Amino acid sequence: MTEMQKTDVAIIGAGPTGLFAVFECGMLKMNCHVIDALDMIGGQCTAMYPEKPIYDIPAHPSITGGDLINKLEEQAAPFNPVYHLSQQVSKLEKQEDGSFNLETDKGTQINAKAVIVAAGVGAFGPNRPPLDGLTQYEGKSIFYMVRKREDFRDKRIVIAGGGDSAVDWALSLADVAKSVQVVHRRPKFRAAPESVSQMQQLAADGKIELVVPYQLDGLKGDGDQLRAVVVKDFDGNTRDLGADVMLAFYGLSQNLGPIAEWELELDKKHLSVHPTSMATSLAGVYAVGDIVTYENKLKLILCGFSEAAMAARSAHAYAYPDEELHFEYSTSVGVPGE
Amino acid sequence: MTEMQKTDVAIIGAGPTGLFAVFECGMLKMNCHVIDALDMIGGQCTAMYPEKPIYDIPAHPSITGGDLINKLEEQAAPFNPVYHLSQQVSKLEKQEDGSFNLETDKGTQINAKAVIVAAGVGAFGPNRPPLDGLTQYEGKSIFYMVRKREDFRDKRIVIAGGGDSAVDWALSLADVAKSVQVVHRRPKFRAAPESVSQMQQLAADGKIELVVPYQLDGLKGDGDQLRAVVVKDFDGNTRDLGADVMLAFYGLSQNLGPIAEWELELDKKHLSVHPTSMATSLAGVYAVGDIVTYENKLKLILCGFSEAAMAARSAHAYAYPDEELHFEYSTSVGVPGE
Repeated sequence: MTEMQKTDVAIIGAGPTGLFAVFECGMLKMNCHVIDALDMIGGQCTAMYPEKPIYDIPAHPSITGGDLINKLEEQAAPFNPVYHLSQQVSKLEKQEDGSFNLETDKGTQINAKAVIVAAGVGAFGPNRPPLDGLTQYEGKSIFYMVRKREDFRDKRIVIAGGGDSAVDWALSLADVAKSVQVVHRRPKFRAAPESVSQMQQLAADGKIELVVPYQLDGLKGDGDQLRAVVVKDFDGNTRDLGADVMLAFYGLSQNLGPIAEWELELDKKHLSVHPTSMATSLAGVYAVGDIVTYENKLKLILCGFSEAAMAARSAHAYAYPDEELHFEYSTSVGVPGE
Repeated sequence: MTEMQKTDVAIIGAGPTGLFAVFECGMLKMNCHVIDALDMIGGQCTAMYPEKPIYDIPAHPSITGGDLINKLEEQAAPFNPVYHLSQQVSKLEKQEDGSFNLETDKGTQINAKAVIVAAGVGAFGPNRPPLDGLTQYEGKSIFYMVRKREDFRDKRIVIAGGGDSAVDWALSLADVAKSVQVVHRRPKFRAAPESVSQMQQLAADGKIELVVPYQLDGLKGDGDQLRAVVVKDFDGNTRDLGADVMLAFYGLSQNLGPIAEWELELDKKHLSVHPTSMATSLAGVYAVGDIVTYENKLKLILCGFSEAAMAARSAHAYAYPDEELHFEYSTSVGVPGE
């Protein structure tokens, strides 16, 4: 068990809305700790569409999910947020003084004057293939996302899956890997046709191998080091694919997780909040972004930004009830006088 | 009187919120006409602080008012908005079919299925010095803002005012103008001290002249061409300053203007709206941005963006009541499948 860390605001979720909440709290001179189940900030933007352009972020005619997160991180950075990644808040307990004790599944303990839940669709993680011994390799020789292509140079790679991620990474890693084998249970891939064609050309040229239709059957290795992926066709014949690394792309699963147990008022798996204070049913706990619901709620990142601004002010009023906000908005400067 | 132009949505105000409303309406396949009293889009951002950085636009750690407007204009452009500038909506009349006829003080007539008021602090314009014959020169040889410095090359310029705008333009135009004379009724200028020092150095070097303490007393010219600005000291002595151009920087005045007469429910000079539909008290008329009020309303551009997204959906439901919205948000794409 680690030491209790104290902060003004604990923000649950490091997606775009959570990151902007850091900025808005910072503008009100409140510091923040941010907890996220993923091993990097950005939530869905970095985990699900880091390279895909988004068109409806105001004043960004086009921006990728990854760039959006970089900009938001930069904007929040002056306020020195503390990020606690790869962990989920498992306990939230209100204290007698009105503050909250949070504990994560990694034992991190935080005491916060107020809480902003910005957990998106809830904690989400990779869909794992049901293979014995899987967890012993995770993070060492089995991965569910690629952060640096260079990490895979000269490796024997098995890619499992048939969607865009599998195809795109097969194309991208073919250049750097020692070998690439793509295992999919159907011969047909569900990805951009142009990318599938490119992949099939690489296979025809002998640069990669498409192991189809096959499904995963087992893993062989020593300690955390994978040695082979066992695959099976639909007649029950197995093959060992020698491998240093497996990348499994079976999409992401989503659930509210422990948040559902905190006795906050829910409406169809979303947190019910007041539409302009972002207050949940528990005083001191606010919620923003895709996890909330109210009349006419739009699940747009840009609406989450506005909600974050409102939640920060509500959290300030709760955390510092005696302090008047006398804050000059940066947008209010610049009025020319005579 | 011009021909009646038909559109889906008439947006009153071409500031950041109005421009983003064009984008949001466009995403719902509604076209827009935008009316603004200023002679360029951008509202306060371009009129009041085009060069000053704003720090609280999400995912823009720092952006000038001018750049913000350029980005928003670019984002709206694919939806071909029609801008009607330098005119104020003087009449708004609901028709029997639920649509609205708008008329501007320049005679432009628009029929719109729905209306979004994004008029900021109301129509605003320059404070005009009380001089006879002033209007005959406006836009030809008397200006209240500078768009292109080059327009003033080799001109004899009189700058009136003692604030940042007067000082900054005196510094900037000293290089290109034939002469610059700055008229202010006090010897002391209310501007950034560093800029004032620079201006005083230019005056000491004979590059510009500070005509202080003097006030404006009259104008001389032919037709729309100014020839001289008459100034007077506090003993009543007058001087004629030979001038091709006068720039008057006496700040901006703001008022709701005709909007106050449309029988929309007001609360302390703001339009009362429902906080998540942006509906005013008149069905079919929505309002967003600094002109609106509701519980916990924050006057932040970023909140205006969110309000614009909500207003666009409300306007769509009003304009096309039989059409279901089955719109794929750009942010919902990119979910990897197996």
